[in-house]
Amino acid sequence: MALTDPDRLFPLDPGARGLARALYDHVADLPIISPHGHCDPAWFAGNDRFPNPAALFVIPDHYVFRMLVSQGVPLADLGVPSADGRPVETDPRVIWRRFASQFHLFRGTPSALWLNHAFEHVFGLTEPLTAETADAAYDQIEALLATDAYRPRALFDRFGIECLATTDSALDDLSAHSAIADSGWSGRVIPTYRPDTVVDPETPGFASQIDRLGVLTGEDTRSWQGYLAAHRARRAYFKRQGATASDHGHASARTADLPASEAAALFQKALNGACTAAEADLFRGQMLTEMARMSLDDGLVMQIHPGSWRNHSGPVFAQFGRDRGFDIPMRADFVGGLKPLLDAVGMEPGLTIILFTLDETTQSRELAPLAGAYPALKLGPPWWFYDSAEGMRRFREATTETCGFYNTVGFNDDTRAFCSIPARHDVARRVDCAYLATLVRSGRLREDEAVEMAHDLSYRLAKEAYRL
Amino acid sequence: MALTDPDRLFPLDPGARGLARALYDHVADLPIISPHGHCDPAWFAGNDRFPNPAALFVIPDHYVFRMLVSQGVPLADLGVPSADGRPVETDPRVIWRRFASQFHLFRGTPSALWLNHAFEHVFGLTEPLTAETADAAYDQIEALLATDAYRPRALFDRFGIECLATTDSALDDLSAHSAIADSGWSGRVIPTYRPDTVVDPETPGFASQIDRLGVLTGEDTRSWQGYLAAHRARRAYFKRQGATASDHGHASARTADLPASEAAALFQKALNGACTAAEADLFRGQMLTEMARMSLDDGLVMQIHPGSWRNHSGPVFAQFGRDRGFDIPMRADFVGGLKPLLDAVGMEPGLTIILFTLDETTQSRELAPLAGAYPALKLGPPWWFYDSAEGMRRFREATTETCGFYNTVGFNDDTRAFCSIPARHDVARRVDCAYLATLVRSGRLREDEAVEMAHDLSYRLAKEAYRL
Amino acid sequence: MALTDPDRLFPLDPGARGLARALYDHVADLPIISPHGHCDPAWFAGNDRFPNPAALFVIPDHYVFRMLVSQGVPLADLGVPSADGRPVETDPRVIWRRFASQFHLFRGTPSALWLNHAFEHVFGLTEPLTAETADAAYDQIEALLATDAYRPRALFDRFGIECLATTDSALDDLSAHSAIADSGWSGRVIPTYRPDTVVDPETPGFASQIDRLGVLTGEDTRSWQGYLAAHRARRAYFKRQGATASDHGHASARTADLPASEAAALFQKALNGACTAAEADLFRGQMLTEMARMSLDDGLVMQIHPGSWRNHSGPVFAQFGRDRGFDIPMRADFVGGLKPLLDAVGMEPGLTIILFTLDETTQSRELAPLAGAYPALKLGPPWWFYDSAEGMRRFREATTETCGFYNTVGFNDDTRAFCSIPARHDVARRVDCAYLATLVRSGRLREDEAVEMAHDLSYRLAKEAYRL
Repeated sequence: MALTDPDRLFPLDPGARGLARALYDHVADLPIISPHGHCDPAWFAGNDRFPNPAALFVIPDHYVFRMLVSQGVPLADLGVPSADGRPVETDPRVIWRRFASQFHLFRGTPSALWLNHAFEHVFGLTEPLTAETADAAYDQIEALLATDAYRPRALFDRFGIECLATTDSALDDLSAHSAIADSGWSGRVIPTYRPDTVVDPETPGFASQIDRLGVLTGEDTRSWQGYLAAHRARRAYFKRQGATASDHGHASARTADLPASEAAALFQKALNGACTAAEADLFRGQMLTEMARMSLDDGLVMQIHPGSWRNHSGPVFAQFGRDRGFDIPMRADFVGGLKPLLDAVGMEPGLTIILFTLDETTQSRELAPLAGAYPALKLGPPWWFYDSAEGMRRFREATTETCGFYNTVGFNDDTRAFCSIPARHDVARRVDCAYLATLVRSGRLREDEAVEMAHDLSYRLAKEAYRL
Repeated sequence: MALTDPDRLFPLDPGARGLARALYDHVADLPIISPHGHCDPAWFAGNDRFPNPAALFVIPDHYVFRMLVSQGVPLADLGVPSADGRPVETDPRVIWRRFASQFHLFRGTPSALWLNHAFEHVFGLTEPLTAETADAAYDQIEALLATDAYRPRALFDRFGIECLATTDSALDDLSAHSAIADSGWSGRVIPTYRPDTVVDPETPGFASQIDRLGVLTGEDTRSWQGYLAAHRARRAYFKRQGATASDHGHASARTADLPASEAAALFQKALNGACTAAEADLFRGQMLTEMARMSLDDGLVMQIHPGSWRNHSGPVFAQFGRDRGFDIPMRADFVGGLKPLLDAVGMEPGLTIILFTLDETTQSRELAPLAGAYPALKLGPPWWFYDSAEGMRRFREATTETCGFYNTVGFNDDTRAFCSIPARHDVARRVDCAYLATLVRSGRLREDEAVEMAHDLSYRLAKEAYRL
Repeated sequence: MALTDPDRLFPLDPGARGLARALYDHVADLPIISPHGHCDPAWFAGNDRFPNPAALFVIPDHYVFRMLVSQGVPLADLGVPSADGRPVETDPRVIWRRFASQFHLFRGTPSALWLNHAFEHVFGLTEPLTAETADAAYDQIEALLATDAYRPRALFDRFGIECLATTDSALDDLSAHSAIADSGWSGRVIPTYRPDTVVDPETPGFASQIDRLGVLTGEDTRSWQGYLAAHRARRAYFKRQGATASDHGHASARTADLPASEAAALFQKALNGACTAAEADLFRGQMLTEMARMSLDDGLVMQIHPGSWRNHSGPVFAQFGRDRGFDIPMRADFVGGLKPLLDAVGMEPGLTIILFTLDETTQSRELAPLAGAYPALKLGPPWWFYDSAEGMRRFREATTETCGFYNTVGFNDDTRAFCSIPARHDVARRVDCAYLATLVRSGRLREDEAVEMAHDLSYRLAKEAYRL
């Protein structure tokens, strides 16, 4: 029995479906460009086998465990590590059974599509996952994970990944990336410069992080100029390790462009832990503009991922820490927020800033009009909660008419669930082909244009936008 | 001539339409669970005949009369009672003719679907309502209303209503519900605890309402602890009369969780009429959290209906009072608003809080992410302006991918238009079957899952979520 | 080869497509009512030939050049006049080639639909525009522009325009309109009263504009009463020249209804250049209410176009001035914003205020509920970024269920791109017919109703709402 439908996500109308299928056939086997995500480079450095099915599919995946939590399953019962020392389930088979018995919760969600795709196409399962089939599925996955063909590098190759970018702290030594480079393996796994902890005055221990930045770079990071120079040095180091991009996860898209003396004074306040919340926000905003200026110089593509209220549940954060499925989107303002940065560098054709949003209302109202005017701006694909068939369709419908296709940058899987990567790219390719087929069949695009666009959206735009 | 299309609201694609019809056939005749609405329990207590067609379809239905008002028909001409003593039309046939002559205004609206459904399936009309057919329609409806088969209890039984919840002031003596219980009639009509007037310091005569609460319960409602105890007592009374839920209609979703001493001081200020607008809002927010804690104890399901700017038109409110079609939605913030309550009780698996919204942008951005994480939260169906084919479709498309189906609670008709209840549930069942069929035909759900989901969405989820 | 598909924008489902086509056939050739736009009346006064293809299609059209700019083409290279004296490209053929070589950027946008429609149906081109076909297209268009059949009046007649409204400063002498009237040509080109520069205290040189208003009218515009009288006089002058409407482009929908003495004091502050930003906003809001009161008296239909952040890019504004594609939408608030005005005049059935939005979220949440209640309010069609197939579909789906069709006013092309007028109305008619066909095929509208609605949406509603 197939767990996935060969015509999934194509339009219902037979004519449009046939065309979507034809377009998809052109792009289904293209290499995967994964320019932004959260895979662990240590997987590919060490190439150790994945520990067990629960550790692969359940424990690290907040999409999966939050859904079970929402229906009353305690996080501890799913083996999610605690932050306060409380005991959690350690038997992977018990965790797997709990997951399997609740698999119906994922009906209609992208998680179901991704998981079924991996179950069928990566692990050869043929029965829907239920309480009854849980053990057989566990055994089959476990047996395969024990084989060399299911080690990280082998799967990377099998998945057809041409390039995979990880996301790495500015203070990371990138030893895993070095180890990959030194290993002789041909897989391209590159870092991304993510300086959040050293640009956010509200990071616990901010000053000591800045000191570490100084130690790593030999710069006097207690001075504003030295601090900026240290960022430049780390960016250069990341570039030498293969990075082509930076990434910035701020609470908002607020930017600033202060006179240097004011920025320097604000930085001192931040170092002294004396910033108000408003000043901390201003400093983060200033640093986005500084990073954009550095991008102009060093060519790193800049990504901005704003708008998540991290760790919304106080108790869950206290008990289990970060990334536990309790990051909730907020309303965003790109029009006012980005203006200082855009007045500074928005008209630079050599600069690429890729914007992501967790507030879909900004797609047609703010993002597409901005990206459809400023040369420096491009739109990232639907992110996180919108990385789904409907989310992708809404994104195309909301943005294409205003900024076209060429101000978008193809797909990001943005995942830490390695085995979902082929499934996620497959979903994006199918949804885009469905959209293109719909445009053709409703007289808004010629078929030859659609063929070219299918390739561009699946492969070329990501590669070019991220300078890969 | 049929006023309703047997395939209405199904997908256009023939394959999906066939499947939607098959799914619908499974659920079309299921009993109606109506866990939230505004029917008058006195109808079923007294079982008097409905007075006339205008009193049944026009005068009490703000969906209907506001549309005519928007095109220049004065409220007074439609028999809507005035608040300032001005005379209003009293001849039901004249009112009916005005309504009939403007029936084209409802083209494309859910009101047209509901009204045509009632006209055809409840009253056997066969001609579209127009100025020309107005009198014949009036006469036919009037003749039927005079028969016993069209008295409230008979219609309740004929409509297949398994349970109907009304919405009742905390100060209501529930005598109508008692009368129903004592009557020997088998219909299940239960109250819902709606304490708005005794938790909102901005209610005119707030302190005297609180005094009445004291008289009813024997508690010292001039003290914070006595006030809370009085709520507990009234909730218990409502429970004994069959209630399984409370309902809260606040201007916003703002909650608070103050230390008891601060809450007590704020309550005294409220009693003294000394709250600023911000303090009144804070008190309402505090009471949502208090009510959630009481729900944890007594098991009443909590509903929150925030975000309506009541009585937007000053002149209409002065002349005609409340519920005159001039309640307008506002932007909502659930993420910040609910945090205090959620930090207090959001992780309780035994608690059920059902959230409604008048701001659709919150569905994908806030509500689905929150309900897809917090065990205490569930999403109510599309409400009021969104209780429609497109509103329901958008709701499913915006929420399912993030929180699945099982964090939703089936349908509420939320109506005071009794004869529209079958039509409204029919619309919901059709739209959900259309959505499920679309998922199946696009490879996102198996057909056996869709059959189960159709039943769940039409019947089981409402029954379970509301503990009926 | 056809550049446009005869079935473009119709539904994919064959049954619905057939019905949409049948509905469209009823309305395709109806005269064009263009009640709001930005054509230059001087075209029709002088009836000079259009200078060249670049001046017709590229240089004045911010939809077109901003897209090229967004991909790195400098504004100066497209011949857009500069504000700071920098040289810009002057060779129209060079500009045209740049445009043609980037025509793929418009894939999936309404610009592509409009341009291809004009290329094929106005200029007879048969090959898609590319770098290769650029010169031949240029030559063919240029040759036709040199003929009398392509002069403005001839095209106006050929396009089937029954009435075209321009948008004119309150200080404009309307000499072009007078010249048209005096010319004996039968085309109806009427002005619209747009007083933005004389109601906005933040207009550079506000006081001197007010003085000019005084000179034009003989009123003492340094007094509040004289200022209002001057507006009344100018409105009367516009009416005599054929105007039936006023238009107001404010940053927000904020209104006010101050006591006359406060309004007068605020006006003096505005004249003295002493308003804070908040006071300037308050004055603009007061003037919307004043204009609504004048509309009650003189019968001019009032249009409000709020919510654009004009000239978002500081550098582009400094270098190239206004209307350069850098006007970006903002979040809007109609519910709070309009309340003072609506409390004053919202229930007046003789008043027509047409609301436009650049924030789609307000369509279902605010605009449809307001227009579905207040007799004075109607909804304008999707505006600017939403004047597109998806934007129009979303508009109908978001508003019809709440305020029906009859609180909307048909289509506005709102364009300064003269040759796009037939294309834009064609798109609107097709999308509306597609929507109506979908309603019929899903049982939400009868076919005879759809036929009537197609005519109403294409012609009658615009004509009646604008009192043409």
